[in-house]
Amino acid sequence: MESRNIRLAVIPGDGIGAEVVAEGLKVLEAVGTKIEATHYDLGAARYHRTGETLPDAVLDELRGYDAILLGAVGDPSVPPGVLERDLLLRLRFAFDHYVNLRPVKLFPGVRTPLAGATPGDIDMVVVREGTEGLYAGTGGAMRRGTPHEIATQESLNTAYGVERVVRYAFEKARSRPRKKLTLVHKTNVLTFAGDLWQRTVDRVAAEYPEVTTDYCHVDAASMFFVTQPERFDVVVTDNLFGDIITDLGAAIAGGIGLAASGNVNPERTSPSMFEPVHGSAPDIAGQGKADPTAAVLSVAMLLDHLGLHAEAARVEQAVATDLAERPTGRAGRATNEIGDDITARVSG
Amino acid sequence: MESRNIRLAVIPGDGIGAEVVAEGLKVLEAVGTKIEATHYDLGAARYHRTGETLPDAVLDELRGYDAILLGAVGDPSVPPGVLERDLLLRLRFAFDHYVNLRPVKLFPGVRTPLAGATPGDIDMVVVREGTEGLYAGTGGAMRRGTPHEIATQESLNTAYGVERVVRYAFEKARSRPRKKLTLVHKTNVLTFAGDLWQRTVDRVAAEYPEVTTDYCHVDAASMFFVTQPERFDVVVTDNLFGDIITDLGAAIAGGIGLAASGNVNPERTSPSMFEPVHGSAPDIAGQGKADPTAAVLSVAMLLDHLGLHAEAARVEQAVATDLAERPTGRAGRATNEIGDDITARVSG
Ligand SMILES: CC(C)[C@H](C(=O)O)[C@@H](O)C(=O)O
Ligand SMILES: CC(C)[C@H](C(=O)O)[C@@H](O)C(=O)O
Repeated sequence: MESRNIRLAVIPGDGIGAEVVAEGLKVLEAVGTKIEATHYDLGAARYHRTGETLPDAVLDELRGYDAILLGAVGDPSVPPGVLERDLLLRLRFAFDHYVNLRPVKLFPGVRTPLAGATPGDIDMVVVREGTEGLYAGTGGAMRRGTPHEIATQESLNTAYGVERVVRYAFEKARSRPRKKLTLVHKTNVLTFAGDLWQRTVDRVAAEYPEVTTDYCHVDAASMFFVTQPERFDVVVTDNLFGDIITDLGAAIAGGIGLAASGNVNPERTSPSMFEPVHGSAPDIAGQGKADPTAAVLSVAMLLDHLGLHAEAARVEQAVATDLAERPTGRAGRATNEIGDDITARVSG
Repeated sequence: MESRNIRLAVIPGDGIGAEVVAEGLKVLEAVGTKIEATHYDLGAARYHRTGETLPDAVLDELRGYDAILLGAVGDPSVPPGVLERDLLLRLRFAFDHYVNLRPVKLFPGVRTPLAGATPGDIDMVVVREGTEGLYAGTGGAMRRGTPHEIATQESLNTAYGVERVVRYAFEKARSRPRKKLTLVHKTNVLTFAGDLWQRTVDRVAAEYPEVTTDYCHVDAASMFFVTQPERFDVVVTDNLFGDIITDLGAAIAGGIGLAASGNVNPERTSPSMFEPVHGSAPDIAGQGKADPTAAVLSVAMLLDHLGLHAEAARVEQAVATDLAERPTGRAGRATNEIGDDITARVSG
């Protein structure tokens, strides 16, 4: 495939975000793809300076890019939820990133905390819904601060929203060797939402006779991630359950420093956004201690999404080799050294 | 402490419930405590026979007992949620079991799936709220079965409900050597409920200067359960997060076959209910394959709750010895053999 110009919006964000994104961009350039990258200073610093999280004009501008690369968002100096809701989630919602794609894959040479697990055992993709559920933000508080306070949160689930992500997950399952799809939910307690999810999976399953479907309560799934990760191939789940099990997935696949994700709008009506699963890690920010691998693997997902499959594969291969040949893990190498090493393998 | 008559209601329930409860009762008798146990046939069989899950008259009767021992509830022949909601959760709500107490403790000799983790690393207690949150059951569906369906679930959180469980957790933390309490929530997304939980913890913390308090998002907590379980001493969390992380806790502490729980009404205005964390496991029911250890440890929690601390300690010690001296785990012993072995240690 011929390289073409990628118009990329870069949001380094907070904490280690800028450090890991810099390495991601380094690798992206080494791939030989022509990129026009424009940086946007959104995050805690801008919020403190101007009170802005994501001005409407910036949101409109971002709409014009091919893709977005995001570092991390969140800082203890900002009240919980402000940057998450008004910046990160606003982007996911505004650009209808209904597929939050999170591979959980143990690369050879990477240490998993699970005794005896091998790369073949941990190789799944979590398709997390990205625009609904408890992330809708509806709810409220009454009599706040009094002994009679009540606080509510609402999970909103629509046939439209559930069906499209379930269809995406079935397509994904069909494309993989094992062709297995597991719905993770809590249908025995969240009976209304669970019923919608289960019925949708059952109905769409009829169109995919080659895909085996399975169901697992989220509590049991959390257990099986640790005791029998090989049960899972493609997992489809709601926004909150997906949030939880993908951090768990990151843990079993060698740590949050390696976990990549894509906030995908499959119809490409707006730019998709790629980001490491990890947060801004303010405790280690600015020290060159962050592992940029998750950001680099997010760049691979970005290339793949843009149809640059060979380039994506080269980046993933470079990471795989780097991981395999450094069995001591990331210890002892600074953020930019890891980035340089991967870059060298991509170029070389 | 002098033995006294315990009036115990026993609900074996479904699947392996009856098998493991039988072993729990065997051990309870061996302790030398006088028990009057009355069995209640609630569960799938009764539901199919009579359409009843938990008749009001039975609920009233149960109110008169000192405690309830429950096996497991749930069967694939019953639609999801029916037995869970109308039997198990109804009991938890009706008897105001606002503390769902779930120790996560790796016994010596037990294999954990975590490479390198030792018993000292995994020794926490999860204090899960038991009567609120998304378990309230509120929500609904509109235009069900059409492309325009919406399904909602509501998380209801009250100052009253949050404060009482938080206070219980602080008391628990104060009584333990490490005196550390971690709130697990998702305050950056569930901002209304999270704000209530966080403010409540902060306020109550002022009364417990000797307790260190910490906060962890549920996604990060799921990761840390696997990568750094030693971070946690007492965890306080809401109903759904507690459900998820305690299954994960069971996984890291040697499996669901060992995980005990108490649905506790600390004020003793109604009977508390003790049950293994595991479900009815219909796939292995009736085969003598179930591990009754979780049921036996639930009996220990029951004794402890009734003030029979020495008896509780004897049961726990018998289990600990059984586990330590059988490093091959539960394999090769039938349900009743494990029960007999523990019973022998309690009596002997
Ligand atoms: C920062 C937070 C809002 C976000 C989420 O909950 O989705 C993060 O945990 C993630 O998984 O991307
Ligand atoms: C059976 C189910 C309703 C229950 C729950 O979700 O509380 C179970 O998973 C548990 O943890 O006791």
